[in-house]
Amino acid sequence: MSSEIENRLQERDIPIETIITAIQQFKVETPSWGYGNSGTRFKVFPWPGAARNLQEKLEDAAQVQQVTGICPSVAIHIPWDTSDDWSATRTYAAELGLRLGAVNPNLFQENEYRLGSLCHHDAMIRRRAIDHMLECVEIARATGSDTVSLWLADGTNYPGQDDIRTRRHRLFEALSEVYAALGNDLRLLIEYKFFEPAFYHTDLSDWGTAYTMATKLGPQALVLVDTGHHPQATNIAQIVSLLLDEGRLGGFHFNDRKYADDDLIVGSLNPFELYLIFNELLDAGTRQPDLRIDYMIDQSHNIEPKIEAMIQSVLHIQSAHAKALLVDRPRLAAAQAAGDTLAAYRVLRDAFETDVRPLLERARVEMGLEPDPIAAFRASGYAERVARERGSAAGTSGYPGA
Amino acid sequence: MSSEIENRLQERDIPIETIITAIQQFKVETPSWGYGNSGTRFKVFPWPGAARNLQEKLEDAAQVQQVTGICPSVAIHIPWDTSDDWSATRTYAAELGLRLGAVNPNLFQENEYRLGSLCHHDAMIRRRAIDHMLECVEIARATGSDTVSLWLADGTNYPGQDDIRTRRHRLFEALSEVYAALGNDLRLLIEYKFFEPAFYHTDLSDWGTAYTMATKLGPQALVLVDTGHHPQATNIAQIVSLLLDEGRLGGFHFNDRKYADDDLIVGSLNPFELYLIFNELLDAGTRQPDLRIDYMIDQSHNIEPKIEAMIQSVLHIQSAHAKALLVDRPRLAAAQAAGDTLAAYRVLRDAFETDVRPLLERARVEMGLEPDPIAAFRASGYAERVARERGSAAGTSGYPGA
Amino acid sequence: MSSEIENRLQERDIPIETIITAIQQFKVETPSWGYGNSGTRFKVFPWPGAARNLQEKLEDAAQVQQVTGICPSVAIHIPWDTSDDWSATRTYAAELGLRLGAVNPNLFQENEYRLGSLCHHDAMIRRRAIDHMLECVEIARATGSDTVSLWLADGTNYPGQDDIRTRRHRLFEALSEVYAALGNDLRLLIEYKFFEPAFYHTDLSDWGTAYTMATKLGPQALVLVDTGHHPQATNIAQIVSLLLDEGRLGGFHFNDRKYADDDLIVGSLNPFELYLIFNELLDAGTRQPDLRIDYMIDQSHNIEPKIEAMIQSVLHIQSAHAKALLVDRPRLAAAQAAGDTLAAYRVLRDAFETDVRPLLERARVEMGLEPDPIAAFRASGYAERVARERGSAAGTSGYPGA
Amino acid sequence: MSSEIENRLQERDIPIETIITAIQQFKVETPSWGYGNSGTRFKVFPWPGAARNLQEKLEDAAQVQQVTGICPSVAIHIPWDTSDDWSATRTYAAELGLRLGAVNPNLFQENEYRLGSLCHHDAMIRRRAIDHMLECVEIARATGSDTVSLWLADGTNYPGQDDIRTRRHRLFEALSEVYAALGNDLRLLIEYKFFEPAFYHTDLSDWGTAYTMATKLGPQALVLVDTGHHPQATNIAQIVSLLLDEGRLGGFHFNDRKYADDDLIVGSLNPFELYLIFNELLDAGTRQPDLRIDYMIDQSHNIEPKIEAMIQSVLHIQSAHAKALLVDRPRLAAAQAAGDTLAAYRVLRDAFETDVRPLLERARVEMGLEPDPIAAFRASGYAERVARERGSAAGTSGYPGA
Repeated sequence: MSSEIENRLQERDIPIETIITAIQQFKVETPSWGYGNSGTRFKVFPWPGAARNLQEKLEDAAQVQQVTGICPSVAIHIPWDTSDDWSATRTYAAELGLRLGAVNPNLFQENEYRLGSLCHHDAMIRRRAIDHMLECVEIARATGSDTVSLWLADGTNYPGQDDIRTRRHRLFEALSEVYAALGNDLRLLIEYKFFEPAFYHTDLSDWGTAYTMATKLGPQALVLVDTGHHPQATNIAQIVSLLLDEGRLGGFHFNDRKYADDDLIVGSLNPFELYLIFNELLDAGTRQPDLRIDYMIDQSHNIEPKIEAMIQSVLHIQSAHAKALLVDRPRLAAAQAAGDTLAAYRVLRDAFETDVRPLLERARVEMGLEPDPIAAFRASGYAERVARERGSAAGTSGYPGA
Repeated sequence: MSSEIENRLQERDIPIETIITAIQQFKVETPSWGYGNSGTRFKVFPWPGAARNLQEKLEDAAQVQQVTGICPSVAIHIPWDTSDDWSATRTYAAELGLRLGAVNPNLFQENEYRLGSLCHHDAMIRRRAIDHMLECVEIARATGSDTVSLWLADGTNYPGQDDIRTRRHRLFEALSEVYAALGNDLRLLIEYKFFEPAFYHTDLSDWGTAYTMATKLGPQALVLVDTGHHPQATNIAQIVSLLLDEGRLGGFHFNDRKYADDDLIVGSLNPFELYLIFNELLDAGTRQPDLRIDYMIDQSHNIEPKIEAMIQSVLHIQSAHAKALLVDRPRLAAAQAAGDTLAAYRVLRDAFETDVRPLLERARVEMGLEPDPIAAFRASGYAERVARERGSAAGTSGYPGA
Repeated sequence: MSSEIENRLQERDIPIETIITAIQQFKVETPSWGYGNSGTRFKVFPWPGAARNLQEKLEDAAQVQQVTGICPSVAIHIPWDTSDDWSATRTYAAELGLRLGAVNPNLFQENEYRLGSLCHHDAMIRRRAIDHMLECVEIARATGSDTVSLWLADGTNYPGQDDIRTRRHRLFEALSEVYAALGNDLRLLIEYKFFEPAFYHTDLSDWGTAYTMATKLGPQALVLVDTGHHPQATNIAQIVSLLLDEGRLGGFHFNDRKYADDDLIVGSLNPFELYLIFNELLDAGTRQPDLRIDYMIDQSHNIEPKIEAMIQSVLHIQSAHAKALLVDRPRLAAAQAAGDTLAAYRVLRDAFETDVRPLLERARVEMGLEPDPIAAFRASGYAERVARERGSAAGTSGYPGA
Repeated sequence: MSSEIENRLQERDIPIETIITAIQQFKVETPSWGYGNSGTRFKVFPWPGAARNLQEKLEDAAQVQQVTGICPSVAIHIPWDTSDDWSATRTYAAELGLRLGAVNPNLFQENEYRLGSLCHHDAMIRRRAIDHMLECVEIARATGSDTVSLWLADGTNYPGQDDIRTRRHRLFEALSEVYAALGNDLRLLIEYKFFEPAFYHTDLSDWGTAYTMATKLGPQALVLVDTGHHPQATNIAQIVSLLLDEGRLGGFHFNDRKYADDDLIVGSLNPFELYLIFNELLDAGTRQPDLRIDYMIDQSHNIEPKIEAMIQSVLHIQSAHAKALLVDRPRLAAAQAAGDTLAAYRVLRDAFETDVRPLLERARVEMGLEPDPIAAFRASGYAERVARERGSAAGTSGYPGA
């Protein structure tokens, strides 16, 4: 029962249906690689039934969509996800109730990329990397996606190893060629990361670096925020607000971390931080109603069941989103205008303390879903079935798909 | 004797005089507030003879210039440094062999600034802060300086306390007015800081934030890098290289830190990091010969003698600079082009391992100075004299001058 | 209404009264210095009506106790809190419904302590510091407290400044003398802190350092955990569990931080982390029913109203405590025993997602209090009255009371 | 020529031979796994000629010993390093001028260890892990080593996943059994690590946790410090001094890092920090002349040539060690006793600024070695030869040997 929430919304003249609808319309993209085995540099633990190819990944993603109703698209990673016939793949996805989402290139798993890809000192290797990017643009067209999402692992491990500025010029030159291939209909999302796998400098290391690259390229280049890619203590909500203000926020790779890029389930360790990010996003949404932001999960499920971990992630995101929907913005603005620090904080805190699970259950039931997606999935027997049918693939490397 | 260094330079066809001249021409600005008492929030320990006013600060700065020969200018802080007659102050400085450098406004020590200054929600308080900035522009003109250097303490302590984007708009509006007052001859240096005194968000928190503000304002707005204002593990040399590449690096506030903005003596805890920063700067200098960068010290000498700490700081900067001068750039470029990671690293390491103290001594002696500035200052008896004459002013607050 | 919670507890055969009683019996100590002005090294902003002396601090603390009902004791700080007649002070506190709690010495605000106190190289200064500690032991006796709580600011700012091991030996010698004075009835709580005000090394820098000191001293020496005194990303709940396991956890100084020792309102930035700490504590409580842990707040209210900030802090602690009370421990243990990572996590998450505000309101009403302490305090007009009567004391230094 | 150093030592009545001898007697152990391919979770880049088995690793280690003269022992990792006949392996090593050093168990690469090994909730899996430890004790005996070195990867990724204290009890029980098997002649070194591969809590996470475990076990259990296993900004030299003071420092795993456990070449990013660690060690050595500390390298050479990286590492360690040998300890003590902060710092700084390469060259030449180990190795043609003979093994996993 969400009657208490309903009463409080009524006092603010907000029909609860507005909130329910917003919950139902909010969409999250899951990543194909989140359904396969993955691990750390020390070990990949094989999970019974973990997906072994794109078809199985799509089937698993369809399970998530089936119980949550808000995950209709799947990001793919090239060449981990291969297809001889993208049109057929697209059709198969559609039959599962899915569509293919962002296309992610791989610029880190070829032997040639030891010292970099798009930033490499050797023009031949840069050429190879650019060609792979262009291939991804083509695949985006073939799959009906409008998004290529670039995470660049390039960097150096030792001072002096390469010239930082020269590498930056090489990167701009390479991305300019990719950008030109986008046409008018595709977008390039540029991700940044503080460190790893490079340990001295990373060519795209922070939002400022990605932002300057995006603005030089043009309006179809946008910044992608991965919530695990920042220095300790970084205020991610502030970065989100700045990128929104500059019109350069393209989307998210959601996950959580305590230490480095731990790639844990989003919102599992600091749910309040995730909520504050959504608070900025929804506030921006009220100012820019046609704002498009791509919400994508990017996690590494090293020790947990893959599909269940994905559903759990979606629940955490929905919780943060729903709480942010409840924020009393006029009251917040009034407290801010009065310089009443604690009253303003309490407006955010009140929404966060609210138990939104009844709201989410109601939104699901109205969509014809079970109220509890985890219970529904566990009851389906799907995990046990694929464990039997697929067996345990031996994990061989730290990162999914490798 | 620097005969070994000389031999190695000869092999590279570099006359040692080139290096000596570069050492002699390199200048560092010291801050007036570094000569007064300062401390932490817990305690200001008074130092016997610490300067109590601008005149005494200039006299102390003249001691630093006298023994180092490379510190001819002094940054001032308004209103800590007051003068009824800036022309007379300027003349007094000239008599001491000094000139006045960057003018630093104070936007954090008025009671009105509790919730911000240029970003405050109340337009009256923003007005006051803007007027102070404009006053600093006038003081720069009156003192013959061409630089106003802004560190903005504004931020919030709790989520929701104020709206991050609205504050950004207020800041841009305020700085636009200041920028318009610069005329053609002044520069505005915009500093950023990760945190403190604000503990949730800081309005100018990282280089990207300062950079976007500077580019919106115009070409006379540049970014100031304070080496203590970054998250842990940040690659400052990379930020320096990016700002150089964008033509937006205005200068430095030098200091060192292990934890937060500790404001210790520059280069005292991680001399290699300081050297790597200079490596980027000198590399840029070879590409852009007319490059102007202002090298300023900004430290808080809480437990050590003020003047001696300043001289020690200058020595550390000179050491890093001189080592960076010795880098064999053609050999570095060749190793980079060959993808020889360790050989490239060793080029940087070789210069760092070199003992440059004989070089620095020779440069000083050629300038008519004593070879050891610390020994020269200790021998002068100046510290004992001012301790007798000035006594110990009771320190009352954490930050200098307050 | 807490009927949903009640239903869920019934399913687990737990009468809701058990939870309500636990909420009511849980006590938090507030610090006298939290009612006075405080600030950063940059500025102390005076708050209208902020307490100026111990009597006023006690009166303010009585307000917190009046609306929360769980804050009957007040920690004091010597010499900020002075009394000619501790017996009279004790009586006055009792009249206000309060008692005096932990006695906190001050070993950082004398000019002599520039290079340390109990660890200083000069035996005379160590003597002075030890005598102050012994005075605090006497004051504890005089005030009816059984706890002396030591935070030691000692450390160094530069490598080599002093010998780390020799300082450790001095510290042990000094604390041995203090320990001997405790008799059988007093306890010494030893706090640790990662850094600040020392910036190279801190003599009591982490739990291991405090722990080894405590075990050498004897069973009445225990470790105090300040939640803001750790490196970034530290798992504080784990440290709590280790100290509980070793029987050496004495108590807490609660506050929250995003960056360093920000001393913000506890639980304001990461409420889940605070909840996980309470989860460890309550789990230990079920194993060791006579476990005594002192829960104390230690914050620096730089920009917010002091009393209201304290009440807000108590609410956050109560929220975390109440949620931890709801954890279904048998279900948690079962999931752990089954190696069901996500099911185990969901047990903790479920309790956290629960809105415990109705429970807390019920607990208060049963105690004869208003359901909403903030509203009750705001309605009392107390803040306005003391603002009129006391005025704004000019803040002069960063840390309270100085 | 080290004539300047010699003159300065003469002034202190120290024959340069004392220093030279100390340099020659100092020994460093290299790890077998440092000669094989390794990488991050994203990719293992194969290096041409990287060692593929223990025999090749020993042959490569012999190269390092041949050019440095101070690396006579090699740590091994079980089961990466297997041998049917340890006696024969030992003989082969001896023929190469080597002996086998610390035996390192592997408790992280079996599928069964997904949720832990010695701390696992299932007693059968703990049994398996204990048995592996006992096997390592036997191997130590068989190889003539007296050291088993434990790095435990155990931990959890999510709050609640397992009970932290219960796991600690399991660990103690397991190590008690291992300890009992040590007899009187073996030592157990217990390593700690802040995080990775576990991302919520690590069972042995800091020095205090390892220390309490070691003291419970007995005098043959000692703590191992890996220089890359600490939170950002940790003062490692202080931890070293505390463990020395407690008589519980067993040895080091040397490497450097900027971010997390980057496992870069030791001393490559912060040579001053490494020097400060050696300063503590040598200071302790003067107090405890029979002090035994095992200096071991533990790095992951992801992008660089393995053998050359190892030689470079040894050079960095020798540089830090030699500089620490030059510290004028009486002058340091005098400055400390006078409370002269900057003079004390300068004593350390002076030794650090000294170019010790001539000293190291002289020490090598006196030992019959080439003055420059890198040049000597490059000139030998060994790298090219093994590249031809061994080829490039395909790297399959992030961590060496897997």
